[in-house]
Amino acid sequence: MPEYIYGHWPVMESLRAGRRNMEQLLVSERVDDKGVIGDIIQLANDSGVPVRRVNRGIMDDLANDANHQSTILRTGEYPYVESIDNILGVARERNEKPFILLLDLLKDPQNVGVLLRVADAVGIHGVIMQERRSVGVTPSVVAASSGAVEHLHVLQVTNLVNTMKDLKKEEIWMVGLDAVPNIQPLDKTDLNMAIGLVLGSEGEGVRRLVRETCDILVTLPMRGRVASLNVATVGSIALYSAWQARSWEGWSNKG
Amino acid sequence: MPEYIYGHWPVMESLRAGRRNMEQLLVSERVDDKGVIGDIIQLANDSGVPVRRVNRGIMDDLANDANHQSTILRTGEYPYVESIDNILGVARERNEKPFILLLDLLKDPQNVGVLLRVADAVGIHGVIMQERRSVGVTPSVVAASSGAVEHLHVLQVTNLVNTMKDLKKEEIWMVGLDAVPNIQPLDKTDLNMAIGLVLGSEGEGVRRLVRETCDILVTLPMRGRVASLNVATVGSIALYSAWQARSWEGWSNKG
Repeated sequence: MPEYIYGHWPVMESLRAGRRNMEQLLVSERVDDKGVIGDIIQLANDSGVPVRRVNRGIMDDLANDANHQSTILRTGEYPYVESIDNILGVARERNEKPFILLLDLLKDPQNVGVLLRVADAVGIHGVIMQERRSVGVTPSVVAASSGAVEHLHVLQVTNLVNTMKDLKKEEIWMVGLDAVPNIQPLDKTDLNMAIGLVLGSEGEGVRRLVRETCDILVTLPMRGRVASLNVATVGSIALYSAWQARSWEGWSNKG
Repeated sequence: MPEYIYGHWPVMESLRAGRRNMEQLLVSERVDDKGVIGDIIQLANDSGVPVRRVNRGIMDDLANDANHQSTILRTGEYPYVESIDNILGVARERNEKPFILLLDLLKDPQNVGVLLRVADAVGIHGVIMQERRSVGVTPSVVAASSGAVEHLHVLQVTNLVNTMKDLKKEEIWMVGLDAVPNIQPLDKTDLNMAIGLVLGSEGEGVRRLVRETCDILVTLPMRGRVASLNVATVGSIALYSAWQARSWEGWSNKG
């Protein structure tokens, strides 16, 4: 089944990453090919991807009425990596302690997309998500990540708990983010280690078995009148907190 | 002009805060009044707010087709505070160094709502936003904040730069978040001071005069392939970073 990646940045990053099987770039008829759309067409030409002008109504259908910004890339499936070795390989290549994100049954494409975008920004080595009862890397997730996921190593697994155990054998600490009482705030744990940060689903948090498989549980303090924050917000803050603990490793400060 | 606050949490928090002039609670016909809707009706009864059952089509219209979850509160305008003294009063009352959020021309209700929700979670003393060319506290901002803004002190000003100068006279440091090259990452600045954190608009960042009025500029490091993050994400991380520097002041750790 072909997928239809839509929107300027998602299409651009998908072409740049060049990891998918790219079939065709669709551009709305009568849209000016200057500016960013011109850049996208140029990139498609350079990559040998055929470009076709298409009626706006068809574009709207292909993007399920999402905001496609006149550009849709028809591609093969998202190129998941095959095993945790691919992710650990990224850490070895960069000579960094493993820094992994694990998502337990997240269902909202917007939340997952935001988290993947932040995961890219902090230089995560890979993302692991359970295959069933979770959202995968769909075109709406790609869009919500502004295309960032096209550059990430994402692994789908059938049993997240088993994968956590495999990672623990590699001496990677499983750090679960939770909201149960009397656990320490995340800055009181040394996150400058080989870690996998585990986030639970919207509303429900991490499942019991996942929680029990964690080496450490940490929480994000809150003091306001409204008792909870969105998982994308919590996860973004936790990812940055971990990267800060790693002294912004790999940051070039070019602004 | 009445406003129509919609959604379970926004309506609930608005009733709880009790700061608006509340005219009527509208509940969809034929909806069960158990669970959270029952709690909302109870809260309205306790506050002397009349409850009326309304046809679903009318509800949809009043909420501009947003997801109202069968509950709409017809109220007066959002109760902005009148001067910076109201905000500084909160800091004095809590015996804390001022901790203020300033928004420069933010336009997206979703972004502003998320920021206000996080501002509440970290115990900000007040939020200051320019009146013109920005979004105010509209019902969609209330919804995106999950009602948190109903508990916050928000001030609208005609000239943000002048207000920043007034705050500086009170010995509050203006800390601007920016993405220009060669500025220090936000954790290298002591944020455990009397501060106002200044965030610029989506895409454009802080305006030149606002930037020049800041005492310090800090940046959020990024190393990924996709070069920017949403202002709501950046601001949420910055707010937490500042609260962490203040040692989670006011956090009760009840989870």
